[in-house]
Amino acid sequence: MAHGQRTQMRGAELDLLRQIRSRVSGGAGVALGIGDDCALLRPRAGQEIAVTTDLSIDGRHFRVGWYSPEAVGHRTLARGLSDLAAMGARPLAAFVSLGLPKDLVKSARTGKSWVSRFYDGLLALAEAHKTPVAGGDMAESPVALADIVLVGAVPRGRALLRSGARPGDGIYVTGALGGSAAGLAKLAELGGAARRVPARWAAMLQPHLYPQPRLAQGEWLRRRGIAAAAIDLSDGLSTDLAHICEESGVAAEVDAAAIPLGLGATLDQALHGGEDYELLFTARAGKRVPARVAGVAITRIGRVVRRQRNRPQVALIGDVATQPLEERGWQHFI
Amino acid sequence: MAHGQRTQMRGAELDLLRQIRSRVSGGAGVALGIGDDCALLRPRAGQEIAVTTDLSIDGRHFRVGWYSPEAVGHRTLARGLSDLAAMGARPLAAFVSLGLPKDLVKSARTGKSWVSRFYDGLLALAEAHKTPVAGGDMAESPVALADIVLVGAVPRGRALLRSGARPGDGIYVTGALGGSAAGLAKLAELGGAARRVPARWAAMLQPHLYPQPRLAQGEWLRRRGIAAAAIDLSDGLSTDLAHICEESGVAAEVDAAAIPLGLGATLDQALHGGEDYELLFTARAGKRVPARVAGVAITRIGRVVRRQRNRPQVALIGDVATQPLEERGWQHFI
Repeated sequence: MAHGQRTQMRGAELDLLRQIRSRVSGGAGVALGIGDDCALLRPRAGQEIAVTTDLSIDGRHFRVGWYSPEAVGHRTLARGLSDLAAMGARPLAAFVSLGLPKDLVKSARTGKSWVSRFYDGLLALAEAHKTPVAGGDMAESPVALADIVLVGAVPRGRALLRSGARPGDGIYVTGALGGSAAGLAKLAELGGAARRVPARWAAMLQPHLYPQPRLAQGEWLRRRGIAAAAIDLSDGLSTDLAHICEESGVAAEVDAAAIPLGLGATLDQALHGGEDYELLFTARAGKRVPARVAGVAITRIGRVVRRQRNRPQVALIGDVATQPLEERGWQHFI
Repeated sequence: MAHGQRTQMRGAELDLLRQIRSRVSGGAGVALGIGDDCALLRPRAGQEIAVTTDLSIDGRHFRVGWYSPEAVGHRTLARGLSDLAAMGARPLAAFVSLGLPKDLVKSARTGKSWVSRFYDGLLALAEAHKTPVAGGDMAESPVALADIVLVGAVPRGRALLRSGARPGDGIYVTGALGGSAAGLAKLAELGGAARRVPARWAAMLQPHLYPQPRLAQGEWLRRRGIAAAAIDLSDGLSTDLAHICEESGVAAEVDAAAIPLGLGATLDQALHGGEDYELLFTARAGKRVPARVAGVAITRIGRVVRRQRNRPQVALIGDVATQPLEERGWQHFI
């Protein structure tokens, strides 16, 4: 109870919310889901719990006017799942807190409400990665926002960390980079609204609207003991590689020509674009890293070197010159 | 990276955020805190993980203009801790996601910034309950909001649930009820701004601005096997008791005269006010329930009865008449 306000919900809206609740409960590892004060999760013996939270706000991390509700739901969950992938963790449960303006909750006269379609997108991805939605919160808000919490499990002491890189390691990425930024640029060029984008551009928007978290690849790299350090490419290669260097106390060299470019992406978008949700990892020189893991290409893009005074933390080696790779990706508020 | 925006933060703001990070890390049971893709938690063997999320939005769950930042921080964490208390769980870690308008992040010329004082309030309560803040997220937002995630631990299969009540149980509450609603009413009467409230009213605002989650009481009631069902009084007695009845498939009778009233509270505020964050629990008829647990009074306020057609789910027994106790507390959006 706050400030004497009481939410009066009409039958149709209550029905919608019951519908959502009935769609999201249950799953292995969830002993108790929505409907009590807490959800109860049962990790297996010897496992550590990985927890990540990501807040997305309309106008900053997504745009209600630009994306379909399904894409916003997908992207919200993908952000959280990608953090688990970076640790080599397996998802146990997701929790979704939504703040929504009234018009996004009401059922549209001509079909499903925004929030119902948001859950369509989110739950399709959750199902693909066997991730039960075990709880969350929903409140009225002047701006649309979603906070996603992922809880995962990883064998004790075995999580992939940002701090594991050593000089001599190779640097690798999954998939291709810059596709999300290229898709976003194309979307902006076409005037924003994804639903009005001509069919011939649809494939180019895919990496931005429906990024694929690399859970299978992260778990595989951890189980086989191949990755020494890992992070997911949410902020952009330049910024995320700097995080690995910071946490590991090392420096890095990236070969510009080696970077796998996403559909329609420029080198600049691949270096700084962010939101590709691919994995960036290092592996000791002696490790044999396969060309593909679970159907996704793995590319060697550089090497870890010793940190030295007067040398950039991350250097970009081009055809003619080597230059410092500045952090021009997403800067977190905290 | 979203929409080409990049946050340019000035030195003073970055310093503030580093300061907050340095204050919140560490704690037993946290193997890895802020600074990687996920936090890693290590529950002890045989424990289940309890997870709860609560979203608070300015204008709906609190008011930036009314409360001190310290009170908002305290209340944000108290909401989450209280959910753990209701399960008899022990906190492992908290995660705080903040959305903040720019002016709440900038350091005021004359002292600390709003966000820094928010953390003062939150961390003081966290310390009192040995709860490390292991992560979170912060983003710019047109409206101030906080999403709190609490992860707790409870021996497997032993959590207190809403569904454990049986006919014949006594119904009990910790502390006193309605004090939060009475404090809020007084605050509104005095014009809203808590900092300008005369000293003689300060004690009356305390239950609203600084509610105390009953973690010690919840854990004690679980360990001793005294509580059969439990919930925290966040929405109001009428609504929360209905939740227990729903989940347990029972009905309840409450003795109006037995309800312990908070400072300045009316019976109506005690029945429907909410945000007292006391525990409501039931205990089998044979159990000896003490008058106090860990310094807080326990009061028997009624009994669980069989659910019968044509009888209210919750009945309020007064001096002259018995009447249905309607759910007039906070109605959740979901």
